[in-house]
Amino acid sequence: MSKDTAKATPSIPDIVIGRLPVYLRELRRLASEGDKLTTSSQELARRLGISSAQIRKDLSHFGEFGKQGTGYHITFLIEQLTKILHLQNEWPVALVGAGFLGHALANYNGFKDRGFRVSWVFDSDPEKIGKEVNGLVVQTVDDLEQIIRQHNIQMAIIVVPTNVAQDITDRLVNAGIKSILSYAPIHLNVPDDVRISYSDPVIQLQQMTYYLTI
Amino acid sequence: MSKDTAKATPSIPDIVIGRLPVYLRELRRLASEGDKLTTSSQELARRLGISSAQIRKDLSHFGEFGKQGTGYHITFLIEQLTKILHLQNEWPVALVGAGFLGHALANYNGFKDRGFRVSWVFDSDPEKIGKEVNGLVVQTVDDLEQIIRQHNIQMAIIVVPTNVAQDITDRLVNAGIKSILSYAPIHLNVPDDVRISYSDPVIQLQQMTYYLTI
Repeated sequence: MSKDTAKATPSIPDIVIGRLPVYLRELRRLASEGDKLTTSSQELARRLGISSAQIRKDLSHFGEFGKQGTGYHITFLIEQLTKILHLQNEWPVALVGAGFLGHALANYNGFKDRGFRVSWVFDSDPEKIGKEVNGLVVQTVDDLEQIIRQHNIQMAIIVVPTNVAQDITDRLVNAGIKSILSYAPIHLNVPDDVRISYSDPVIQLQQMTYYLTI
Repeated sequence: MSKDTAKATPSIPDIVIGRLPVYLRELRRLASEGDKLTTSSQELARRLGISSAQIRKDLSHFGEFGKQGTGYHITFLIEQLTKILHLQNEWPVALVGAGFLGHALANYNGFKDRGFRVSWVFDSDPEKIGKEVNGLVVQTVDDLEQIIRQHNIQMAIIVVPTNVAQDITDRLVNAGIKSILSYAPIHLNVPDDVRISYSDPVIQLQQMTYYLTI
């Protein structure tokens, strides 16, 4: 299946798209284990805690990847999911905020080979600007728009204090950013053509305490 | 509504429970802005990008919090959601892994006043054990089970390499941990009575690249 076909099927639910990276991650683990060439929806189901019917249904949105009896060819399915998710090339990512978490993300080696590279790090703190973080010189946030436009960057990660998060978001969007991953603990407003995803450990922990007995 | 009433309604969908912390976070922001005593499902909807009908329906699972015409009393609703989510007291959290991200989480000031305190930090690296991270002495992971049992800790955050994540998870579960937030980029197997939540920036970024034009 080609990227163009994926584009021609805009009706695929976000929740299906949301599971594809999880399948891709597990397929790459299977490939790295290296002891076989094929897998099945049953094996993926067992490894991911998702039903095999769900996995087959999700993948069927994009074509016929598996064969009855032989299952999915691991390398082929990895290639296809990589194309569908537009991960053939590395996406440059602008990281805004060079605090503790910004440092952790700039140093995160999990981006490598999975489609992303933190290419620019910004901060507003004169103490941080000009210093290096994992080989990248921290840029002043004053140059945010110029650098993003010049390098045609479409993705950004926000690791800034809550009170400036919306302002930084607005500036990123104005500069052409289309996808934002925000670690600021606040809902951010973006136009319809911009996607935003949140990571807040407190929200995740609070989603579990309901089920705990004190 | 009391905690006991919440316990008597086990049929509330996880997805509803999952939104309550987002409501609570926004209500606390409203309270901190301090310019009014009440809010409405319409105002929350506008601030959160969730429909007002959804918000009313979600909250109605737990009782009648709002009044027609006057809306929700902010402080009262914060108190009720705090009780429903079992956040009246701080939960001690065991943090396993004192690398870059472990440091960032140990230093994260967003836990404070939101129901959690990182109480213990563990690592297996002799270079890290015994050093302080945000006032906490890094413990050897050899003492993981003993400390968790002794202090009756129910929540843990995992920030360890992929290849040891399942082993650490098994040990945490054996020691009595019931809720895990994992930053390891791998699906982890836990028993039915243990909840696990994942945070993987690559998965979140890959969920957005599908929608990007190269």
